[in-house]
Amino acid sequence: MKKRQVSRRVVIIGAVAVGPKVACRVKRLDPNAHVLMIDQDEFISYGGCGIPFFVSGDVSDVKELMSTSFHMLRDPKFFRNVKGVEVRTRTRATEILRETKEVVVEDLNTGKVEKIPYDYLVLATGATPRRLPIPGSDHPDVFTVSNLHDAVAIREKLSRGEVGTAVVIGGGPIGCEMAEALADMWGVEVSVVEILPTLLPAFLEPPLARIVQKHMEEKGVSVYTGETVEEIREENGTFRVKTGRRTLSADIVIQAVGVNPRGELAVKAGLMTTPKGAIAVNERLQTSDPFIYAGGDCIEVPHLVTGRYVHIPMGSLANRQGRVIGTNIAGGYATFEGVVGSFCLKVFDLGLATTGITYEQALKEGFDPVRAYVVQSDRAHFYPTQGLMYMALIADRKTRRILGAQGIGKNGDAVVGRINSIAALLQLGGTLNHLSNLEIAYAPPFASAMDIVNAAANTAENIIEGLNDTIDPDEFIEVFLGEDSGDRVRVLDVRSPVNARPFVERFGERWINIPQEELLDRLAEVPEVENLMVFCNSGLRSYEALRQISHHLGRKARNVQGGAALIKMAGLLPENGDD
Amino acid sequence: MKKRQVSRRVVIIGAVAVGPKVACRVKRLDPNAHVLMIDQDEFISYGGCGIPFFVSGDVSDVKELMSTSFHMLRDPKFFRNVKGVEVRTRTRATEILRETKEVVVEDLNTGKVEKIPYDYLVLATGATPRRLPIPGSDHPDVFTVSNLHDAVAIREKLSRGEVGTAVVIGGGPIGCEMAEALADMWGVEVSVVEILPTLLPAFLEPPLARIVQKHMEEKGVSVYTGETVEEIREENGTFRVKTGRRTLSADIVIQAVGVNPRGELAVKAGLMTTPKGAIAVNERLQTSDPFIYAGGDCIEVPHLVTGRYVHIPMGSLANRQGRVIGTNIAGGYATFEGVVGSFCLKVFDLGLATTGITYEQALKEGFDPVRAYVVQSDRAHFYPTQGLMYMALIADRKTRRILGAQGIGKNGDAVVGRINSIAALLQLGGTLNHLSNLEIAYAPPFASAMDIVNAAANTAENIIEGLNDTIDPDEFIEVFLGEDSGDRVRVLDVRSPVNARPFVERFGERWINIPQEELLDRLAEVPEVENLMVFCNSGLRSYEALRQISHHLGRKARNVQGGAALIKMAGLLPENGDD
Repeated sequence: MKKRQVSRRVVIIGAVAVGPKVACRVKRLDPNAHVLMIDQDEFISYGGCGIPFFVSGDVSDVKELMSTSFHMLRDPKFFRNVKGVEVRTRTRATEILRETKEVVVEDLNTGKVEKIPYDYLVLATGATPRRLPIPGSDHPDVFTVSNLHDAVAIREKLSRGEVGTAVVIGGGPIGCEMAEALADMWGVEVSVVEILPTLLPAFLEPPLARIVQKHMEEKGVSVYTGETVEEIREENGTFRVKTGRRTLSADIVIQAVGVNPRGELAVKAGLMTTPKGAIAVNERLQTSDPFIYAGGDCIEVPHLVTGRYVHIPMGSLANRQGRVIGTNIAGGYATFEGVVGSFCLKVFDLGLATTGITYEQALKEGFDPVRAYVVQSDRAHFYPTQGLMYMALIADRKTRRILGAQGIGKNGDAVVGRINSIAALLQLGGTLNHLSNLEIAYAPPFASAMDIVNAAANTAENIIEGLNDTIDPDEFIEVFLGEDSGDRVRVLDVRSPVNARPFVERFGERWINIPQEELLDRLAEVPEVENLMVFCNSGLRSYEALRQISHHLGRKARNVQGGAALIKMAGLLPENGDD
Repeated sequence: MKKRQVSRRVVIIGAVAVGPKVACRVKRLDPNAHVLMIDQDEFISYGGCGIPFFVSGDVSDVKELMSTSFHMLRDPKFFRNVKGVEVRTRTRATEILRETKEVVVEDLNTGKVEKIPYDYLVLATGATPRRLPIPGSDHPDVFTVSNLHDAVAIREKLSRGEVGTAVVIGGGPIGCEMAEALADMWGVEVSVVEILPTLLPAFLEPPLARIVQKHMEEKGVSVYTGETVEEIREENGTFRVKTGRRTLSADIVIQAVGVNPRGELAVKAGLMTTPKGAIAVNERLQTSDPFIYAGGDCIEVPHLVTGRYVHIPMGSLANRQGRVIGTNIAGGYATFEGVVGSFCLKVFDLGLATTGITYEQALKEGFDPVRAYVVQSDRAHFYPTQGLMYMALIADRKTRRILGAQGIGKNGDAVVGRINSIAALLQLGGTLNHLSNLEIAYAPPFASAMDIVNAAANTAENIIEGLNDTIDPDEFIEVFLGEDSGDRVRVLDVRSPVNARPFVERFGERWINIPQEELLDRLAEVPEVENLMVFCNSGLRSYEALRQISHHLGRKARNVQGGAALIKMAGLLPENGDD
């Protein structure tokens, strides 16, 4: 047996996601490295993204979040025996001495302070959950969802039957997941308060966000968007959460309003940080000190669509970054080029996924974006288990580059798979032409011959080429129901009479029905108004009608994107949405 | 209303997939075009890929295959009224007069022959199902699965209760789908005969093909691979199908042995065709006559991985090609760059998908390929509904370019989604580094933090870098069970004793168990033999063990790819596969 000689000393601060990945990768490439991982907590190497599923009870034991796929607990003993990695828990790094290449650490059990030398140091210090700057937000029983202690505390409260009502502050991913965890499995009456006008505002176009909201409401969750929480007051164990418009009473309050990168240690050591307080790194994930690397929730990385540095705290990115850092430390060469911002979420019976940027973000970044909404089956439309999928695609008019995509539907796997394929194109700067010809594997149980992603690209292209003059579903409702719309606005509904009837009955002469198969013979009946909007179930037949009206009558009209299906799913026309 | 003046006359021969798409696209871009579509059949514009699902009964009425998503029958009346396209069924094109730009057509009902002038002609003549060059293969009741007439005839036979046994000749996609259709829904005793050693040989690596075979056998289908059908004999309504090894008796015989492109009309017109008889086209899908386009099953297109022209008859490609032809005819500019060969299939409870080329094809094409097998959960391993997914990835050692990928698992949507994302990378020439960092959207219900596609790329990279010396599962079985393996071969099983025990009991001293968490302390027990193969459940822990053995003992060993999970799923070690 060869003598084990230490080739390099690696100290890793933080042992949740990026830390363990670095440690294992270094040891696999160079088993003679001495790797020490420290963490101020006692819980290490856990799947933080699993917390809502532990709270719900889907994951029965918190240990499952800390175990390997073969059910072995990833505790310090595991790291020592299986990986050859030393771990010290309940140990806090208080200072980095860059000149002498040492870390000052404090044992939180004994109070003992010591200096540990390193050849390479890794900062995997993560992020701190934000708390709102309002009275009561720092109450110890106002939870954030940031670590396993919170998770265990929340679940214990639930198990004791102490929670009948809950307020979740923040309608982002964690807020939505926690709302489901509390409402679905524990029957808690949950209210979600979101400051912006729609849920998941960083991820979804407004009509798609409305689908999520409507679905959550159908599941019994109260959703208050566009409301600011001003105060949290506790009295005898009950909280009163005051927003600009109402006061909500709750047995438990959960703040899910984002996280801030934890860069204090880096700042103190004189390392470069970003305006948001994240640790600045290059593409090899080195900080401004080449012997110190950083990864995970404490860094910012370039967004491949905008070129801008962004803070995206995701366990999946942490894992990829950990591998890059491990390779570099072990003497290899690896880079992390950036992110496209892929994201997915299960909300009760819906699955949604997004990648890239939204239309609003695209506008802010100076693109000239186009936005296509497409509604189509997730399988061949004749296949018995098919269901509708709702998709938005954002592209740049000038370069035709894809900027972002969002999908939502009952079959979450099918949605996520479609968005992943677009994410792959985004990563390589793909265009609408690439997406139009993207070779989605086809068989009737899994896709359409012309799949929804291809249809979305074709629609965006048709809009850019001026063939498909569109109006978005939310704007359509605003214009049509607008007070001064009167005689200047007409809807031409080209669906079959049985589908159009309720609308015709409700809106009278402002809603005209000519089934598409009769349109070429009845062109004379097409109303001549300032604002004609053509309507069908999805936007497909209305596009065909639009082309015919444009050519044969030489008139302008607009196609209502997503049609009746999207309007109904998003609850945009509630009283008479059924067709 | 503007007077309708004909801008261009377009004649389309063939009205199943590519034809209707061309017709509709032309009319949308240029409603003043006169578009005539002819077909020798009475059935038009149907989803031919849906035939097995109609035969099974999943699709109850054949009309569903000919209808739009809003349940409107796509018959000649539909094309006339909705699309402004003229259709003549039961009309055969017999000759193209290129000098005068006319097509000679024969009305199959009246026998009337006439010449139709065109400005642009589209050949969408499809493909002819192959029949084996053996006695009896042309018997009228030996079916191919090529059109709705066959489909209706087969289903009628089933409905009348005339089919108790069936032989399906050909273990390709259609053969597998038909076997399921007959066995699953109708309870028919089905035998599948495939000439090559594994099912789906053009798509799957051998161990993955074995997964399909084992699953079909578990569902009651008899599968005979490596057998050639020599004769089909009918006696009193019962067929005897004679292979090199046995004679199978059947009430119905289905030949699914591929199709040949139908290029006769093009040949007769002096257009360029390929050695396989397909119509040659350029990237705008023009034939050697610029006024004649061709698309769908009658053409060959470039494979983007190999650069070679290939014949891939798929409805999805036909649709994309139809749009390109339509754009070009209407005066636009569009190209079809080629295919990556994406493919998916449902076989009973399994879903599988592939893209690119197999390892064997890569060898033939002169690549220096590496093949990685990965077994991993389709969701976070702690998420309750997770299941295993089995994947093969093929890449080129020199350029690290991805050449192909295959996936299989119980959650078909999840499998297909992963392969689609790799297909997107293939389309743009992506490398292992791209796949390693591919940003699969992550949330525990839908993916792993380090997803299987990333793990596959990492594994392939580790193999190329010499970190992971592997042996494929089928070769492992061959070597280990080989007659002369004796003392020179040992397996080091690093799973827990409870999992390893059945193997140790069966194979004695040739199968050594040292759990991975004890390996660093028990390195002295690692056997010193010519051929040491390290084994775990998936290939992950054994990789870790391999690294430790290599570094600390300086010894070579090989990692069994896919481990116990893949071997069990593929039934490679049948008597004692449970662990």
